Amino acid sequence: MTPTPLLDKIEFPQDIRRLQKSQLPQLADELRSYLLDSVSKTGGHFASNLGAVELTIALHYVYQTPQDHLVWDVGHQSYPHKILTGRKERMHTMRQYGGLSGFPKLSESEYDAFGVGHSSTSIGAALGMAIADKLQFKPNRSVAIIGDGAMTGGQAFEALNNAGDMDVDILVILNDNEMSISPNVGALPKYLARNPLHEVKDLVKSFKHKSERVLGLVPGALDVAQKVENKIKGLIEESSDSDTLSLFDNFGFVYTGPVDGHDVIQLVEILEEIRNRKGPQLLHVMTKKGQGYQLAENDPVAFHAVSAFDPAHGLSKSSSVMPLTYTQIFGRWILDQAAVDERLLAITPAMREGSGLVEFAQCYPQRYFDVGIAEQHAVTFAAGLACGQMKPVVAIYSTFLQRAYDQLIHDVALQNLPVLFAIDRGGIVGADGPTHAGIYDLSYLRCVPNLVIAVPSDEHECRLLLSSCYQLDQPTAVRYPRGVGTGIDAGTDLETVAIGKGIIHRQGSKIALIAFGSMVQPALVTAEVIDATVADMRFVKPLDKDLLLQLAQEHDYLVTLEENSVMGGAGSAVLESLARSGLSRPVLVLGIPDKVTEHGDTNLLHDQMGLSAAKIQQQIEEWILTQNHSELK
Amino acid sequence: MTPTPLLDKIEFPQDIRRLQKSQLPQLADELRSYLLDSVSKTGGHFASNLGAVELTIALHYVYQTPQDHLVWDVGHQSYPHKILTGRKERMHTMRQYGGLSGFPKLSESEYDAFGVGHSSTSIGAALGMAIADKLQFKPNRSVAIIGDGAMTGGQAFEALNNAGDMDVDILVILNDNEMSISPNVGALPKYLARNPLHEVKDLVKSFKHKSERVLGLVPGALDVAQKVENKIKGLIEESSDSDTLSLFDNFGFVYTGPVDGHDVIQLVEILEEIRNRKGPQLLHVMTKKGQGYQLAENDPVAFHAVSAFDPAHGLSKSSSVMPLTYTQIFGRWILDQAAVDERLLAITPAMREGSGLVEFAQCYPQRYFDVGIAEQHAVTFAAGLACGQMKPVVAIYSTFLQRAYDQLIHDVALQNLPVLFAIDRGGIVGADGPTHAGIYDLSYLRCVPNLVIAVPSDEHECRLLLSSCYQLDQPTAVRYPRGVGTGIDAGTDLETVAIGKGIIHRQGSKIALIAFGSMVQPALVTAEVIDATVADMRFVKPLDKDLLLQLAQEHDYLVTLEENSVMGGAGSAVLESLARSGLSRPVLVLGIPDKVTEHGDTNLLHDQMGLSAAKIQQQIEEWILTQNHSELK
Repeated sequence: MTPTPLLDKIEFPQDIRRLQKSQLPQLADELRSYLLDSVSKTGGHFASNLGAVELTIALHYVYQTPQDHLVWDVGHQSYPHKILTGRKERMHTMRQYGGLSGFPKLSESEYDAFGVGHSSTSIGAALGMAIADKLQFKPNRSVAIIGDGAMTGGQAFEALNNAGDMDVDILVILNDNEMSISPNVGALPKYLARNPLHEVKDLVKSFKHKSERVLGLVPGALDVAQKVENKIKGLIEESSDSDTLSLFDNFGFVYTGPVDGHDVIQLVEILEEIRNRKGPQLLHVMTKKGQGYQLAENDPVAFHAVSAFDPAHGLSKSSSVMPLTYTQIFGRWILDQAAVDERLLAITPAMREGSGLVEFAQCYPQRYFDVGIAEQHAVTFAAGLACGQMKPVVAIYSTFLQRAYDQLIHDVALQNLPVLFAIDRGGIVGADGPTHAGIYDLSYLRCVPNLVIAVPSDEHECRLLLSSCYQLDQPTAVRYPRGVGTGIDAGTDLETVAIGKGIIHRQGSKIALIAFGSMVQPALVTAEVIDATVADMRFVKPLDKDLLLQLAQEHDYLVTLEENSVMGGAGSAVLESLARSGLSRPVLVLGIPDKVTEHGDTNLLHDQMGLSAAKIQQQIEEWILTQNHSELK
Repeated sequence: MTPTPLLDKIEFPQDIRRLQKSQLPQLADELRSYLLDSVSKTGGHFASNLGAVELTIALHYVYQTPQDHLVWDVGHQSYPHKILTGRKERMHTMRQYGGLSGFPKLSESEYDAFGVGHSSTSIGAALGMAIADKLQFKPNRSVAIIGDGAMTGGQAFEALNNAGDMDVDILVILNDNEMSISPNVGALPKYLARNPLHEVKDLVKSFKHKSERVLGLVPGALDVAQKVENKIKGLIEESSDSDTLSLFDNFGFVYTGPVDGHDVIQLVEILEEIRNRKGPQLLHVMTKKGQGYQLAENDPVAFHAVSAFDPAHGLSKSSSVMPLTYTQIFGRWILDQAAVDERLLAITPAMREGSGLVEFAQCYPQRYFDVGIAEQHAVTFAAGLACGQMKPVVAIYSTFLQRAYDQLIHDVALQNLPVLFAIDRGGIVGADGPTHAGIYDLSYLRCVPNLVIAVPSDEHECRLLLSSCYQLDQPTAVRYPRGVGTGIDAGTDLETVAIGKGIIHRQGSKIALIAFGSMVQPALVTAEVIDATVADMRFVKPLDKDLLLQLAQEHDYLVTLEENSVMGGAGSAVLESLARSGLSRPVLVLGIPDKVTEHGDTNLLHDQMGLSAAKIQQQIEEWILTQNHSELK
């Protein structure tokens, strides 16, 4: 590993503040090298962290963290921040169980001012902190660092609109790398790339040049011309560093920039000046995703988040013998379905790669809509398309669908419009942790009227249920887990199954395992040991009441299994149905416990939550003992 | 009633199109007079409808509805639209059961392009329709009509950002009346009220004036000056009618305006021109809320939504002998709690009046935050305040909290921050109908970790539970219904009760009614008839397991009662708890059925849903018969 003599002396930000400004470029080089070494061993978010090295150093150099609050939007650019705030020695534990979170986290460090993971929250959170400080007469400063991609999230605008009208000292740093994960879409990024008043400035310059000759002949005329020029320039360059009457000025922010985000000394000088300004400030910083590591600069999408890799050779090609992921299954299905139904349109809120839509976007550019990081709009837009006789498919992560919950109810479900939600990352997601865990969806979707909810248990089921839901003329949701499936062949047809009907996979005795989605596989393993019946319910809504009644009549014990909160999820649906049927049986509801989850290996987390085959078996056996015991009473 | 000879001949928009342009002002007068007559009899939204009269006529005159799509944002300005689209004769049924909806509604008319009720959806929906038409080569046009208040909702910006980058013919009409329901807040409304480049224009004018004298002396100099002036003006007035390089231009929209929204002939002429333009267009129309009815112009807040009134005398003062509303109970509690805890801050997303915060805003202006129609931001902002050791109270309607669901989970609950959600309009809301029904919250909140959920059953309980939740150092929600309470005295102290503990109100035999919130009162009535025990559970989460166990042990039949969807709500919590306890009892879960609700009188709706005392009794009796029957089998 490259020696890092300066970085070796830095444990906390006060150590950086002891350095000379002139030493900071070297610190940046060392930090970047440390980052490369560290992430190449652990994997994790990478390219955006490389881009944030100088900005992070400059912020901690100028701002008095942790009294001053740095709020990192999304937070996947916070590794340099973690290294400089007492967590350097724990970087090798990144995203592992018990180790550092891949995102800022309140409980991890006093330097993490706000827990993040989802996009576009930083301005609102920093505003809250700034107001709280102001009310308590604390001199602390609040800074939101937000990427240009995250600026397309409506919540960021809500916060700008609110902050811009307040008498509050807040700095928003727009970390503009001209992309979020995928290249950005929408009008705003285009706006950022141009300078709307450059033309006027050029004109003034040319005016001065052209008129000097004639005006020179008249005493005093050059003075007048100069005054006009100055006044116009003054208006245009309203803020000291600005060369654009920017969008942000319209929101009441004083705009500064754009400045080079990799010139750490200049950044420090600008921040020193800005820190003393009053009122809402916006600093526009240009950075390069992947900066300083040629392979990442060349392919920042691939290097956005990585597995461990060899720094000298870059990412290894992913082997094709791996089972397909559910994302890939969805990606193939939507291509096939689109080929036979030209009304099918695909919508993603800035997750082309993550949602498996790369090929679709290439094959059907006119039918593919990346709306930016804008979940609310994605769903209402889909509702509008459905009103126009189209059949939109919204590809979205479970945890991000939380952002469009009202739109799902108000715009899609109440109007009974045929929008298919392809919900990826349902259940535990592993290393990304609690902010990304899709463990609430079955609960929050089940109460939505008109909605069909399907939960495939393997790759073939995934395809089957996507086709089955797509053909319906009403709102539907197919929810599948993150990562690879069971390895079985998903098939290539567009076969459908009956809506609201489950199937029995294995006939046992006494105990029936009523399994949903990803829990069917461990249920089958457990069932072999305890000779249980296993039903794959396929649908959470409508629930197969007949199958349930049959299982209840034929067994003494019922166990429900789901990768969702035990509060109000599929297990509760079973309890509700049994209560209505009047047939009483002991039911054990297994699912995600009602508490904040951890990050780490998915199998490990499943085991800890009692959702591994072994733990399922153990809990059932213990429960039956208790049941027998209470029956004896 | 004033005669309306022109309006009498109008049934559908094609009838308007047969009129001469010069007749339209008279039609507007007649329509306004009809509206006054109609709303003063039925009640409903009023001031914003008066403001939209000319715009509505002009739109239907120019646009070929229903092939062209008019999407009215929020929709409380759509009464003139309803009158002109075949529903004039049904205006007297407005907001009544089986009558016209107070909002545009897909199923009500082909002229209602999109169902609305919540804010800021119109641009996204209209964009969807425009894209659908484009893909099908249909020449139809899509128009979103959005108020300046609704423009502060982030979703509107998400849609602007998306649309501005698309090659699509869409018109957004910004209906700017300088207020939403309350006067608007935030930087955007201020922006709309000023003209950022007026200064430059004035300067150019003054330059021309001042320099004419000197330039006149030089041959050709005036020409140069004129050219410069023209070029600068040209840049500024980039779009044909614009006199501002507007915010919206930054988003890729061509801005036109502001124009007088009450000059119907000019509106028609502008719309005729705009309808033929290509690409995203924004027309900024200035209207006056309450226009043409002096009393409403003078007090547009009071006239936003009204009960029936006498047109000659205006609104009658509300009598003070009415029981207080839960909104008022909350409003008094927060004043009292704020007086003893200066960390208490109140946040509302543009619902100062509706949430009972008028007095608080007056007494504690520094501690009151109206963030605009921006639910997502409201909650993240509150989380930021809580990080700064404040104790924020977010006053929000149940149905609007759906908009901030992700922020509630991601920013508040996962970080376990002490934010109190004062959730108004929980349950059926009557005349506002399904878009405003707060009947999903218990289901979608119950799965959120760390959250305490309280449901007061009367005014005193409301105050008690607000105080009890407020004192906790974690996320809490107190959910109360729309409208008046039982009429009992709420008290004035800040007493608290044990968290997660319910109380027994009446001891009966055999049947226990396990009631939540607003259902305690009808349960007590029913209980007298069938001699049932009644428990007021007070908390949906944590649920009082001990009380539940006791009730189960002491009774043969359990009935749960809640004003929330029967899918995953409080009744399911009871089922879950009983399943865990291993104690099996027949349970009847009563609540809102799993289908889209209607609008109309609340008592009527309750009865239809089986939640009146009489229907509760009837269902219990029928159910017990079935139970006995199945026991005999």
